Amino acid sequence: MSDLTHEALALDAADGLRAKRAEFVLDDDTVYLDGNSLGALPGAVAGRLADVVEREWGRLRIRSWTESGWWTAPERVGDRIARLVGAAPGQVVVGDSTSVNVFKAVVAAVRLAGEGRDEILVDAATFPTDGYIAASAARLTGARVRAVDAADMAAAAGPRTAVALVNHVDYRTGRLHDLPGTTAAVHAAGARVVWDLCHSAGALPVALDADGVDFAVGCTYKYLNGGPGSPAYLYVRRELQPRFDSPLPGWNSHADPFGMSAVYEPADGAPRGRVGTPDILSLLALEAALDVWDDVDVTAVRAKSLALTDFFLRCVAAYVPAGRAEPVTPLAHAERGSQVSLRCTGAEEVMAELIRRGVVGDFRPPDVLRFGFTPLYTGFADAERAARVLGEVLGG
Amino acid sequence: MSDLTHEALALDAADGLRAKRAEFVLDDDTVYLDGNSLGALPGAVAGRLADVVEREWGRLRIRSWTESGWWTAPERVGDRIARLVGAAPGQVVVGDSTSVNVFKAVVAAVRLAGEGRDEILVDAATFPTDGYIAASAARLTGARVRAVDAADMAAAAGPRTAVALVNHVDYRTGRLHDLPGTTAAVHAAGARVVWDLCHSAGALPVALDADGVDFAVGCTYKYLNGGPGSPAYLYVRRELQPRFDSPLPGWNSHADPFGMSAVYEPADGAPRGRVGTPDILSLLALEAALDVWDDVDVTAVRAKSLALTDFFLRCVAAYVPAGRAEPVTPLAHAERGSQVSLRCTGAEEVMAELIRRGVVGDFRPPDVLRFGFTPLYTGFADAERAARVLGEVLGG
Repeated sequence: MSDLTHEALALDAADGLRAKRAEFVLDDDTVYLDGNSLGALPGAVAGRLADVVEREWGRLRIRSWTESGWWTAPERVGDRIARLVGAAPGQVVVGDSTSVNVFKAVVAAVRLAGEGRDEILVDAATFPTDGYIAASAARLTGARVRAVDAADMAAAAGPRTAVALVNHVDYRTGRLHDLPGTTAAVHAAGARVVWDLCHSAGALPVALDADGVDFAVGCTYKYLNGGPGSPAYLYVRRELQPRFDSPLPGWNSHADPFGMSAVYEPADGAPRGRVGTPDILSLLALEAALDVWDDVDVTAVRAKSLALTDFFLRCVAAYVPAGRAEPVTPLAHAERGSQVSLRCTGAEEVMAELIRRGVVGDFRPPDVLRFGFTPLYTGFADAERAARVLGEVLGG
Repeated sequence: MSDLTHEALALDAADGLRAKRAEFVLDDDTVYLDGNSLGALPGAVAGRLADVVEREWGRLRIRSWTESGWWTAPERVGDRIARLVGAAPGQVVVGDSTSVNVFKAVVAAVRLAGEGRDEILVDAATFPTDGYIAASAARLTGARVRAVDAADMAAAAGPRTAVALVNHVDYRTGRLHDLPGTTAAVHAAGARVVWDLCHSAGALPVALDADGVDFAVGCTYKYLNGGPGSPAYLYVRRELQPRFDSPLPGWNSHADPFGMSAVYEPADGAPRGRVGTPDILSLLALEAALDVWDDVDVTAVRAKSLALTDFFLRCVAAYVPAGRAEPVTPLAHAERGSQVSLRCTGAEEVMAELIRRGVVGDFRPPDVLRFGFTPLYTGFADAERAARVLGEVLGG
């Protein structure tokens, strides 16, 4: 047994979050480092979803909209997520996809902008959908998009800027961007900011309220383990809610949805971010999935995440031949999300071989091996094994 | 036993769809006439969804996007629905809510319109969300909305009309509108038509291809029994697909979604209607729910639907004191959907009492009792009992 193997066992033994792993469905044959794409199944979800289907839908049917709390689920589940992203209750609503929520937030932010502000700044390395949707929002509102490196966003915001749309963590490189600093700088320039939290919520502390963020969106199927394609969320800062002018004013966001009025009058508060009928099966599966967070402090998650990625980087340095897989994720903790991306020639084939050998990460074009570390269920022995197998695949 | 009770038993005995009832979870204490709001649970759904959760998500995890066919589910399930609405494969995609799909279709239709066409006609009695979303689409595209009775839509379409948005069946009155005639007239005026099929798909034959419809949308949780808030669908006529210019160009509608290009290039065909990551749990529950249609001819469903609503109206006439509950649903078969709406003083309280007595319909403001007849699981004895209990509640 190598020194790193011994060290991994010792680190796992000392891990305060170790017991959490038992709350997930995992198998010991596989090192699952793709929880930043699809979180593992929390064990409690299957039973809860069976109850939703068989009793709430099957037996109570339409009565469940009130008696089983279906109608209020988007805000109730939103408040569960709010705690994880540093938001007081009443500001997060769950529903629709991340893309659709980006659309709501960016159009609304442009509508809030003062005269002469027609520029949407978009993180140049953004996950593509944010850029596509921002371009559509620009086209529909008469604004224009300018791509700027996330690190330069603070300097780029100016008198023409309406809104900056920024990814908190870059999906490809794992770089963590400066949310408080960028938000403050964009505000100082008189503009709004929309943060995409897909790769940060559930992986590291986010302080939306304290940092004065205007809007935020995120998916729930990565570190929040909500299930494949589970509904996304939208945060609208409380003081902006009365002026939040959604481009998707569906009947669910009406002040009196069952009044069936032909005239739209928006609801107050978080429900204004709703659109159509909420997707109850997925929403309640997500709600059950969030139970794993009840006794978890996100600062402990962050500490373990950094320890895991530090350790993985050390193992990669030890096991992988020099020059075969170079970290593109920043080494500085302040700039690192909860993943490690390695640049590697032939990355697509290398990842396919890793998966055959039981180490599941993913490939992102053109040449990135991506390994996500989900502190609730990933251990140090997993990190060591992943690096060791990578070394074997790369001829170490 | 009354004559109507005898007749109901005879009609049930002769019903060719009677065996279908066993494929649903129902209880004999309740007459469920709210399947036009939330369809009953098909018995096969629970087992299939448990497999999706426990094996596909729990065991295979990320591999299921390819190995379990998750990625292609929106079009695969779309093709299942296509058969029920008279569309050849490759034109229907499932995802998002009805409201969001109305937005895609109306904006795209306005973009297809020729110079000087800036008018969106909206069914004046529309389910509210269609009107709200049409107003938003108008605001974002520089068009304007004009409300017109659905029956007058054909005459109203003119040289300024870009698109007409019409409900196939009025959610409140149950009136069935003339889809072929209206479509032809709107086309003759040089405009497009978007049909909302929420209250017709699965209840009566729809012939989207044959009738030359441009766009259609619908929910899947009413007569299609997909479950609470299950994803909606979008039909884009094949010949329009290359010019379908969606206002919600998410990464899932990209020609090469995993290429992660910063430049948006739309996919061909039905996938162009996608936006974000599909909601797999709800989508696959819907897919399982659609199995009940495999051996069903929609013309037989329509015949039974009309027989059921005819019979219910006769029972109401027999059991309910004159003047206490007047049909607002047209008596002419060509103008009737699969529900019976009765105007009734104190309708909200009357419906609450009906529900207490095991007859579940719903109330729609201001004074409508709404009874939905879902031919796959509603029988003639159900109709007779519902009318009899209504007669008792109204002092018959």
